[in-house]
Amino acid sequence: MTQVPPRRTRSGGRAGAARRRGGEVIEQMPWNPPLLVDRPVEPLTDEGVYAIHDGAMRILEEIGIEFLNHEALEILRTAGCTIDGENVRMGRDMVMEYLALAPDTFTLTPRNPDRAITIGGNHMNFGNVSSPPNYWDLELGRKVPGTREMCQNLLKLSQYFNCIHFVGGYPVEPVDIHASVRHLDVLYDKLTITDKVAHAYSLGPERVEDVMEMVRISGGWTHEEFEASPKMYTNINSTSPLKHDIPMLDGWMRLARRNQGLVVTPFTLAGAMAPVTMAGAVAQSLAEALCAVVLAQIIRPGAACAIGTFTSNVDMKSGAPAFGTPEYMRATQMTGQLARFYKLPMRSSGVCAANVPDGQAMWETSNSLWAAVQSGSHMVYHAAGWLEGGLIASPEKFIMDCEVLQQIQRYLDPALWATGPDEIALDAIKSVGNAGHFFGIQHTQDRYTTAFYQPFLSDWKNYEGWEAAGGIWTPERAHHIFKDIIANFEEPPMDDAIRAELADFVARRKSEGGAPTDY
Amino acid sequence: MTQVPPRRTRSGGRAGAARRRGGEVIEQMPWNPPLLVDRPVEPLTDEGVYAIHDGAMRILEEIGIEFLNHEALEILRTAGCTIDGENVRMGRDMVMEYLALAPDTFTLTPRNPDRAITIGGNHMNFGNVSSPPNYWDLELGRKVPGTREMCQNLLKLSQYFNCIHFVGGYPVEPVDIHASVRHLDVLYDKLTITDKVAHAYSLGPERVEDVMEMVRISGGWTHEEFEASPKMYTNINSTSPLKHDIPMLDGWMRLARRNQGLVVTPFTLAGAMAPVTMAGAVAQSLAEALCAVVLAQIIRPGAACAIGTFTSNVDMKSGAPAFGTPEYMRATQMTGQLARFYKLPMRSSGVCAANVPDGQAMWETSNSLWAAVQSGSHMVYHAAGWLEGGLIASPEKFIMDCEVLQQIQRYLDPALWATGPDEIALDAIKSVGNAGHFFGIQHTQDRYTTAFYQPFLSDWKNYEGWEAAGGIWTPERAHHIFKDIIANFEEPPMDDAIRAELADFVARRKSEGGAPTDY
Repeated sequence: MTQVPPRRTRSGGRAGAARRRGGEVIEQMPWNPPLLVDRPVEPLTDEGVYAIHDGAMRILEEIGIEFLNHEALEILRTAGCTIDGENVRMGRDMVMEYLALAPDTFTLTPRNPDRAITIGGNHMNFGNVSSPPNYWDLELGRKVPGTREMCQNLLKLSQYFNCIHFVGGYPVEPVDIHASVRHLDVLYDKLTITDKVAHAYSLGPERVEDVMEMVRISGGWTHEEFEASPKMYTNINSTSPLKHDIPMLDGWMRLARRNQGLVVTPFTLAGAMAPVTMAGAVAQSLAEALCAVVLAQIIRPGAACAIGTFTSNVDMKSGAPAFGTPEYMRATQMTGQLARFYKLPMRSSGVCAANVPDGQAMWETSNSLWAAVQSGSHMVYHAAGWLEGGLIASPEKFIMDCEVLQQIQRYLDPALWATGPDEIALDAIKSVGNAGHFFGIQHTQDRYTTAFYQPFLSDWKNYEGWEAAGGIWTPERAHHIFKDIIANFEEPPMDDAIRAELADFVARRKSEGGAPTDY
Repeated sequence: MTQVPPRRTRSGGRAGAARRRGGEVIEQMPWNPPLLVDRPVEPLTDEGVYAIHDGAMRILEEIGIEFLNHEALEILRTAGCTIDGENVRMGRDMVMEYLALAPDTFTLTPRNPDRAITIGGNHMNFGNVSSPPNYWDLELGRKVPGTREMCQNLLKLSQYFNCIHFVGGYPVEPVDIHASVRHLDVLYDKLTITDKVAHAYSLGPERVEDVMEMVRISGGWTHEEFEASPKMYTNINSTSPLKHDIPMLDGWMRLARRNQGLVVTPFTLAGAMAPVTMAGAVAQSLAEALCAVVLAQIIRPGAACAIGTFTSNVDMKSGAPAFGTPEYMRATQMTGQLARFYKLPMRSSGVCAANVPDGQAMWETSNSLWAAVQSGSHMVYHAAGWLEGGLIASPEKFIMDCEVLQQIQRYLDPALWATGPDEIALDAIKSVGNAGHFFGIQHTQDRYTTAFYQPFLSDWKNYEGWEAAGGIWTPERAHHIFKDIIANFEEPPMDDAIRAELADFVARRKSEGGAPTDY
């Protein structure tokens, strides 16, 4: 806490209060998921793309992937895969045939249809940090296990910020709730505190079915309506190298059958669970992801699938994972090239290795977020709030990341580089001539309120002005905004009957004991 | 100083000591200016490029630029420009004809020929922060006017880091030295502390001639050798809107006559000294820059010229300049497209508005440095050490920026995305199969020492390891590295006779009174 002496906290608090306008804690950009307008950055030549594709195919043909789920094994055997115990091999012709069935674009529609998001094409969407077991904020000044209240507060940030377009897994794991019923309480919180696209962990049949049912209830949908188009999604991780486990595959198949969104993200750290060479790590990641997409397409031709990348490197001196590195950036761009080769939507992440929301956290996170833009990513997980390689969720980091995400949204607005006569502004330049300034002229007055990105966290005052306002460093300013948002948070509207039905479902499932925890 | 309690400083000091290996304070990347290998990011269509070009040409043809220097006016009049008082108009045919004489690539060779840099093509070079009047470090914890010692320390950092390829202006203005002789003392320091390409401020004939003579002496060159190819450079700024002042033009012409490097960088803040629309601000910036290039080409056909961009926006609520914004990034990319259209080398910058080396400083600086990469910039000024919109130089920020610069150099290394059989690594994947890990295998052992970027400042330990090491935030770790580098700094070798000749020159010019300060 030496970072935040009490006096500063109070002075910052006043600054926070001063920021309020018209009931809003901050002035933020409207809900408007950005469109990717630039050519992606593509390090690989066509030959390079083919070499990685060929590598992925040879892994599937010659080495095989272990599927620990026997139901999945039977489905793959029937479809013509070569099964040897739990090892599954499949030929590239079969793989490409099933990949061709997957849509290149799909829509996820939450209980609030105005918050529907498109996955694929040139659509980009940001999600909150997901699944850290621990929490850190400036007031605590230390790392602590997550609680339901911390999880609720991070869900409130996820709902509050218009630059957060979908809600991933638990923004922090509330370990104060027993694992058997945790999914019930958190999904109740998630579905009442937010009205954005929700996610189900594939951690056993009961949890998956409970979450799908709660999402169905939240939208007031019949079962038929729920299954008519994707309303939610799951994300599964392979157990690298080359393995898919029982519960992940179970959830994957359950959501496929009910036509929900499917994202598969191998976690291939080069030098640890994958080759030390990035091309090999990407090829392995693709092999692990593509065979899951094949399984989904066998179960439901046309199932909504996206492949994720989590290929980074480890510190070869300590074995510690590294994030937001040059290797991470290029692996993400390379995966983007292959995702376009396979015509599949892509998911990447906003990540860092830093333990606190300082300079390192922001250059690592900026690297990973710009790589998401450069790679043409459609879903960006962990885009706000991630620290310590995903082991810590931080509200200050969440606020800081949202400032960067808003800047990315503005960066992608073509109005910024319009070149019509009004933008070239020759008459304005002529009117000012060789002296004077542009502040007062009509051309400026007509545009100044919307001409430039307006930050809510960045402090653009000069040093003296910044010092007079308390000399507050970025994470502390973020802390005050966090407190203000929580203090002023209003839940999105929900029909009382639906809220009651959700509560009844949670109560009934708790009385039945929730989900088994002996796996 | 609440950011740095004494105990932490000591523990960090130990950490700093532990970092030393073989006399080196840190393990850094070797001298190796990066090559731009990616397609630039190009927001403008061909029509957009032409619209901005046409705007710039019409500014030169219809509005004109004020040249306050009468010698320049006569040269431009003789060459066929339309002169009205101090207003100069020139037709696009004449402009394009003279621009065609400028080389698309040139070399700057300092006293150490191993530190020669190429400006143009796909060559990228980073320079230190230049010209802040003030200094901030974590130990002081406040903003103070620059001194010679602070300037010397920042010059030592500029020499120490291999990712700094040229030395710009004074890394901080040493206001404790009288302005009449400041250039003599700082150039003596710069030429003895560093052996990299040096710069002369265009602040009056005496200063410019003194600096050129001292650079000539530092290389042991005859006058003929000095003028045979560029050994140094100047950077001039127009007085936006649409004006070039007397001393800047004087220095520009003096260096052109002696075949030295010429960089012209308009400082066009959209909404203040340029139109509120980025396309207009870029068009105005180009008009101001291109007419200076024309002047140089009239004086010396083939003169080594580069155009700079410093187009950013102001906060329209306060008028404060903003840096590293989405508008700054796109303006830099747009200028890059136009620089390629004119076949001229380009200079951009590493900038931020933040007042301290915190998260905001690093997302703003990351934005500007990635924009430099995306725009195809050949010279990146202020790439390390800049705070408060250029009003503060900070050694901690310098160290933090060098970590980012090294990551950019690694990012641009094609070895990272090689896709040969050794990189696809099918045999390695086969050998590990569905279990185990890649740490121990030969494929990893053969490559792990060079496979990944190795940071010198980023802390990749987990939270507990980081806490056990003192729980030190990034700027404080940077502070300890700064202290260690200064404590262990060794000047590059210089012939005693040359050092004596430099000292004699400084002594003589001081005895003559140095340069007048009444301008």
